[in-house]
Amino acid sequence: MADSPNCDLKSLSPLQLFERVTEQGEKVRALKAGKAPKDEIEAAVRMLLSLKLLYKTTTGQDYQAGLPPRDLVLINNGTSKEEDEDFVDPWTVQTSNAKGVDYDKLIVRFGSSKIDTDLINRIERATGQKPHRFLRRGIFFSHRDMDQILDAYENKKSFYLYTGRGPSSQAMHVGHLIPFIFTKWLQEVFDVPLVVQLTDDEKYLWKDLTIEKSYEYARENAKDIIACGFDINKTFIFSDLDYLGTSTGFYKNIVKVQKHVTFNQVKGIFGFTDSDCIGKISFPAIQAAPSFSSSFPQIFNGKDNIQCLIPCAIDQDPYFRMTRDVAPRIGQPKPALLHSVFFPALQGAQTKMSASDPNSSIFLTDTPKQIKTKINKHAFSGGRDTVEEHRKYGGNCDVDVSFMYLTFFLEDDDRLEQLKQAYTSGELLTGELKKVLIETLQPLIAAHQERRKQVTDEMVKQFMTPRKLAFEF
Amino acid sequence: MADSPNCDLKSLSPLQLFERVTEQGEKVRALKAGKAPKDEIEAAVRMLLSLKLLYKTTTGQDYQAGLPPRDLVLINNGTSKEEDEDFVDPWTVQTSNAKGVDYDKLIVRFGSSKIDTDLINRIERATGQKPHRFLRRGIFFSHRDMDQILDAYENKKSFYLYTGRGPSSQAMHVGHLIPFIFTKWLQEVFDVPLVVQLTDDEKYLWKDLTIEKSYEYARENAKDIIACGFDINKTFIFSDLDYLGTSTGFYKNIVKVQKHVTFNQVKGIFGFTDSDCIGKISFPAIQAAPSFSSSFPQIFNGKDNIQCLIPCAIDQDPYFRMTRDVAPRIGQPKPALLHSVFFPALQGAQTKMSASDPNSSIFLTDTPKQIKTKINKHAFSGGRDTVEEHRKYGGNCDVDVSFMYLTFFLEDDDRLEQLKQAYTSGELLTGELKKVLIETLQPLIAAHQERRKQVTDEMVKQFMTPRKLAFEF
Repeated sequence: MADSPNCDLKSLSPLQLFERVTEQGEKVRALKAGKAPKDEIEAAVRMLLSLKLLYKTTTGQDYQAGLPPRDLVLINNGTSKEEDEDFVDPWTVQTSNAKGVDYDKLIVRFGSSKIDTDLINRIERATGQKPHRFLRRGIFFSHRDMDQILDAYENKKSFYLYTGRGPSSQAMHVGHLIPFIFTKWLQEVFDVPLVVQLTDDEKYLWKDLTIEKSYEYARENAKDIIACGFDINKTFIFSDLDYLGTSTGFYKNIVKVQKHVTFNQVKGIFGFTDSDCIGKISFPAIQAAPSFSSSFPQIFNGKDNIQCLIPCAIDQDPYFRMTRDVAPRIGQPKPALLHSVFFPALQGAQTKMSASDPNSSIFLTDTPKQIKTKINKHAFSGGRDTVEEHRKYGGNCDVDVSFMYLTFFLEDDDRLEQLKQAYTSGELLTGELKKVLIETLQPLIAAHQERRKQVTDEMVKQFMTPRKLAFEF
Repeated sequence: MADSPNCDLKSLSPLQLFERVTEQGEKVRALKAGKAPKDEIEAAVRMLLSLKLLYKTTTGQDYQAGLPPRDLVLINNGTSKEEDEDFVDPWTVQTSNAKGVDYDKLIVRFGSSKIDTDLINRIERATGQKPHRFLRRGIFFSHRDMDQILDAYENKKSFYLYTGRGPSSQAMHVGHLIPFIFTKWLQEVFDVPLVVQLTDDEKYLWKDLTIEKSYEYARENAKDIIACGFDINKTFIFSDLDYLGTSTGFYKNIVKVQKHVTFNQVKGIFGFTDSDCIGKISFPAIQAAPSFSSSFPQIFNGKDNIQCLIPCAIDQDPYFRMTRDVAPRIGQPKPALLHSVFFPALQGAQTKMSASDPNSSIFLTDTPKQIKTKINKHAFSGGRDTVEEHRKYGGNCDVDVSFMYLTFFLEDDDRLEQLKQAYTSGELLTGELKKVLIETLQPLIAAHQERRKQVTDEMVKQFMTPRKLAFEF
């Protein structure tokens, strides 16, 4: 980190700022103790005072040594002491960093592997296709056993894709599309079947929803998923409430997983307590079971050893760590995984978006006008406070939500790089960057809405009917 | 209890004997303190010495005040201090009393109601049929809301029966037939449909069994159940592993129950711990769900308010206490219950029989010779050690297993009463009583085996196919 308090410090979270002040205080003490030259000590003290002032402006609180900013102590798996740790589980994603979660740390903590250039090149060689922008830009950044999937694929052994969605409301937002956009690409380039789980039972258990409402959301969400352009001959979409009652293979795998996971384990992985309902406690087995091909006898001709690849946001990894732990004990192959980063809320990358806050993201039902208004009004900017300052110091793409959204949705690499340079240098203003995003998202969402209109009830029924797909296993 | 140590004391358990010695010691002290006549004190002391001798002979231990016989401290729900409490849950039935569990106490503890003469008479009036011997003889002794079932029935509102079995092995014993014999009678006299749950998933979760083996046992057990003579047009038998994957109504009710029961609750009711697998923890919902008619849309035409009556052994009551607690919260009627006593093991009424110990009962696969040998060799006798003593003091029907079995299987009330009097008076010897039992069971089991042979795979398939039954709801 540079010494000038003007350089990028504005983009720091209160907690990071607190740490920066503490660090600088220690530096001053060290210089004094080491009898450093007077001017060096004075410069360090000036820096300390500037940092303290910035801290006060940002948090509204005076800096107090040892006392981090209030309301910002982070929850963590084990302890809340490590204040710079992000918290990630399937229900909560929390970070104090405006750049978002520290994904490199998450890879170490979760024990997964980084998707590096070698792996991306290998995917390119295996498929003969240019890697998807989500790979090129580190949006899918982590994996488990993707190399094994490629080993097998190169030896003409096929696999299947499994992804899912918890249908907590009728309206999906653009962030919800990320796994589906990527999964559609994987399906195309590898030519493999796909199963999509809609966990309406989970939503019934966790939310204040009736069974009927959860199921209705599942069907509505299925339409948005179908509108992503999945091939009806290669894709099976299912609601748990529905499919559990139509497939004996599925329930058998669920009960197998349930036999091999204890309450102690789910308590450790998901943080369940004794006051949680038994439905929540046993649910992880239901998200685990589609990782095994025997859950879909109609697709895999009864074969139980077809390898599964799961593209998902990294917050879903706990389910699949558990699944991979159980798999060998029930004689099944471990599913492989591809993990994505979180899609940031319009307000900034500190939290995952919420479908229940209409202003936290762009919804697939938003009109062009709503899209424009939301981005102009709510998209957190990494730009400067005045045009003059912006021209002089430039914007910060690392925390600018409009720029982040463009990395997800703007296909043209060169254009994205140009925008980044222009914004960082101060040449491009915040309003101009937002305009590029608006012009990128409006047609994308309009096209999605158009495709969704084409999705008939008959098509939904067909996608959701257990059946043979256009693959031989 | 009579004062003579010869009278019935032999039938006491070590713990009861211990209590008897303690009691007598207190009596001696009271007599001495009250300066009672010398001969009265001497008689009480002689009695105390006899009791202490009997205690030593029975337990192999010297009587020590305040120290109950070792290895006999009973497990109890809350505490092991109340040594005369029986322990009853779905997996363990334990009592120190040779007469078996104290069912009156169980009614108080479980909060159910006694099946009294009034209720039996009312059943007789409602059905126009002589009450089944299981009712006449207190074998079905406790109920919940049977009066409501009769209220509704008298107002031409029908109900359905639900019972079940955990298929832990291929061979069923005669004790397993008790709920089915009684359920068949209920079905006939009330003319109502019946669902029979085979909890093969439970057995897979609790035992060292594969899914395939559990399911095989379920199908084998179905044959024995069908051989009880159930009407194919009125009866649906289902394996959980099978039916859960063929009925969306069933899973929906399971997940509803699972949402409304916490781990704390199942911990309290069933004694689960954090080390138990999540399958066990959530299983109670699967045994609860068939209590709701919406679990069987094919039978009840989608109606969700048909009242359910569950005949079962009292050890299954914890499941249905839980179910009755949940029912109103998910908008379903509470199931009513009829509880039976436990069928005693050949070795005595202290424990429930075990299908895994071939000598603990008569199996439905036993030959006439095996039946004879088992009864002669293993049936615990309430008779005296020598013919002379027996003729003089008579046998004790309360602890005699052959007599207990006859109360279950001998239809003729007068004959049973004659046998009781003759045995108690010493007129009838143990061998003669056993002969009556052998001659009662041999033809019953031969007839069952004959009917079972007639059960074809096609019939099993038909009974186990979800379908409309011969009832309009």
